[in-house]
Amino acid sequence: MATKNNVAVVLLSGGLDSATVLAIAKNKGLACHTVCFDYGQRHIAEIEASAVISRKLKSKDHRLINIPLDAIGGSALTDLSIDIPKVATKGIPITYVPARNTIFLSFALAIAEVVKAGKIFIGINSIDYSGYPDCRPEFINAFQKMSNLATKEAIEGLDISIESPLINLSKSEIIKLGTSLGVDYSITVSCYSADKGGNACGNCDSCRFRQQGFKEAGISDPTLYIKS
Amino acid sequence: MATKNNVAVVLLSGGLDSATVLAIAKNKGLACHTVCFDYGQRHIAEIEASAVISRKLKSKDHRLINIPLDAIGGSALTDLSIDIPKVATKGIPITYVPARNTIFLSFALAIAEVVKAGKIFIGINSIDYSGYPDCRPEFINAFQKMSNLATKEAIEGLDISIESPLINLSKSEIIKLGTSLGVDYSITVSCYSADKGGNACGNCDSCRFRQQGFKEAGISDPTLYIKS
Repeated sequence: MATKNNVAVVLLSGGLDSATVLAIAKNKGLACHTVCFDYGQRHIAEIEASAVISRKLKSKDHRLINIPLDAIGGSALTDLSIDIPKVATKGIPITYVPARNTIFLSFALAIAEVVKAGKIFIGINSIDYSGYPDCRPEFINAFQKMSNLATKEAIEGLDISIESPLINLSKSEIIKLGTSLGVDYSITVSCYSADKGGNACGNCDSCRFRQQGFKEAGISDPTLYIKS
Repeated sequence: MATKNNVAVVLLSGGLDSATVLAIAKNKGLACHTVCFDYGQRHIAEIEASAVISRKLKSKDHRLINIPLDAIGGSALTDLSIDIPKVATKGIPITYVPARNTIFLSFALAIAEVVKAGKIFIGINSIDYSGYPDCRPEFINAFQKMSNLATKEAIEGLDISIESPLINLSKSEIIKLGTSLGVDYSITVSCYSADKGGNACGNCDSCRFRQQGFKEAGISDPTLYIKS
């Protein structure tokens, strides 16, 4: 039977980063419980990719949790009346979803308590990213301190560690690492405006970082783009 | 138009504590956006009470957010296969819901960003309570530090303050304070096993704290109990 220290909860959006993180956790010999959120985002193809990736990497189980962030609004990712920018913008972009990673990590914490996981993996990185506040190392450190006080596990002396192995890697470093671990990036979906088949737009922030990453890594980009 | 500092998000479960907190916030002249969570708990009557209390105290709006904590499990409040204890138990009781307040506050943070609220009110207290880890002042302080780093508002220099005005009050002090502010406790529901009409069991932890509170406050208990 798995002991506490080799059980992990892995946030798995279905994108390039989280797929890499799952491969890292599996490579450490951890039994992984994956979780994906349907939060009213536009990119449904990412949700389907998440389940495929979880199965392909032999996770222990996979949860799809519905959370109505679209009822809260305030982001181009959850509000269909706000357009996704097609060019880079200054400051924190409109694709920022209020408190998204705080909410995701809170659910992961609840799952970690129930499945007795000692680790939560999240694929955030603070290098090639869109400037979201909840992708920074200082945010993760503060969430760790808070979660050490939040749970029954914590009271009983068993902390749950928040692991963000990509936090200081560039997109190209992430792609090189994942490729060395055998990640099949053709089944991951990063695009904010992907079509139902998971084909990417090639224009949004997320597509731009991904394309640049493959280029810099010198690895052929397996992404399928929408034919224009 | 309301300025940032007189807008608040108030977590309103429909119980005695959160109704008192809403009255405190209203008494400060704040425009209150109330939020209640349907998290698969047994006590649906509490959810209905929340909407009634919000309307009665003239809140700006009321949100009911569905979050599937029952799919995560691990608590007698969300898992029908676990019985609610009828007598006090030692340690953290089985009614503890993994990471519940962390999740609730995370959603409140998202709403606060969207409605530009400078305050989030939560009715936790650490005196007459069931020993839940996420009802302690040190948890709230850590959540505050984390949330100061989590949001776009925070990056732009506008922190959202977490207010827990009941944290050091006993149940009888809360009841006295609420009564002085005109709270009608007959419409609040605290019981973990209330029937569909909101009648309380009189036996669970929550009922016991409430009964004792009215007794110590010397205020007649308006709670309707299930006739045995």
